[in-house]
Amino acid sequence: MAEGLFFVLEGIDGCGKSTQAGMLEEKLKKENIPAVLTREPGGTAVGENIRDLLLDPGGTMGTCTEMLLYAAARAQLVQEVIQPALNQGKTVVCDRFVWSSLAYQGAGRGAADKKIYQLNQEVTKGLTPDLTFILDVDVEEARRRLEQKNATKGGDRLENMDMPFYRRVREKYLTFAQYNPVSVEVISSHEKPEAVHCQIWSKVREILPGRE
Amino acid sequence: MAEGLFFVLEGIDGCGKSTQAGMLEEKLKKENIPAVLTREPGGTAVGENIRDLLLDPGGTMGTCTEMLLYAAARAQLVQEVIQPALNQGKTVVCDRFVWSSLAYQGAGRGAADKKIYQLNQEVTKGLTPDLTFILDVDVEEARRRLEQKNATKGGDRLENMDMPFYRRVREKYLTFAQYNPVSVEVISSHEKPEAVHCQIWSKVREILPGRE
Repeated sequence: MAEGLFFVLEGIDGCGKSTQAGMLEEKLKKENIPAVLTREPGGTAVGENIRDLLLDPGGTMGTCTEMLLYAAARAQLVQEVIQPALNQGKTVVCDRFVWSSLAYQGAGRGAADKKIYQLNQEVTKGLTPDLTFILDVDVEEARRRLEQKNATKGGDRLENMDMPFYRRVREKYLTFAQYNPVSVEVISSHEKPEAVHCQIWSKVREILPGRE
Repeated sequence: MAEGLFFVLEGIDGCGKSTQAGMLEEKLKKENIPAVLTREPGGTAVGENIRDLLLDPGGTMGTCTEMLLYAAARAQLVQEVIQPALNQGKTVVCDRFVWSSLAYQGAGRGAADKKIYQLNQEVTKGLTPDLTFILDVDVEEARRRLEQKNATKGGDRLENMDMPFYRRVREKYLTFAQYNPVSVEVISSHEKPEAVHCQIWSKVREILPGRE
């Protein structure tokens, strides 16, 4: 059986990733394509506990600790969920992956790219997405969306970060896209969810086997 | 101010480390030597949460995930507790450190020594103990002690490991000691706690400044 395709959605908090990841999974299933939706950090029992640690607004945490916790959750997710699903020929949709570490811990918090990259090569055993979507939205708009969300349910440790931090993270994503034109698509996420989904789906359809 | 001394206690579960770490700290304080007692995994708010994850008997966890979680807890402990205390001239007593990763994830679970070592060099920023005590006890005796303890409070994920696993871990500790005769002391832990403590204290006293 051919290995399944691996799609990743990336972007700053408030860019609409989780919504789009859900819409993509739903669409795949509607087209009778076996699909698995997962997210980072999390997606496994251990990973969801690590997620709680990372997002706890009360915690103090060094950058190195944060980087290692993301890597630990990712190691478990690849081993327990992503790789087995791909081996079974399923399409995997993942909300965040290695590029979140490079953008957030690297550009955001100043950890060295090379160290993050090397660590994550080990952790993922070299697994790379077939296509990464960067949902791009300006930082002010993302902030507005998060403020709306936080007003109803309260923000977490990461979502309470400041604007210059988010600008560095966004910049890093866009630079990443520039250097990886084949495997990365930047999608403007200022439009309505349905319109953003259509753009994502048209790119996914291009590489789904037997769908040209 | 001179940097403080850093003592680590290592050994298989049931070897009496935690008891001895506590007795050493108490003795240091009795001698008016400012001392900090800490433990791995744990010792910080984040670290204690990671400890709960690691010791949860219900969890499934890959070796890579486990190694990264220990490293994450250690990064936070070095940054938040050990290095600041040493900088203030305090003596630090730590229950487990890098050698636990090499013994447990390396010899015990088969992760590559070189990877564990490189990762931990980063995580500790090269911090090494002034003296490491390996409390050596045979695996059958350790097992008996753990069974007694578990009969009253229930075992955790790591303490429920099998005998060949513990034998590999013990062997690794003893090999480590052989190759590091200056910075490692092997202390037989079959005797009563007070007798073991006396041996540890006589070695500590030798390197305490102004105490010869």
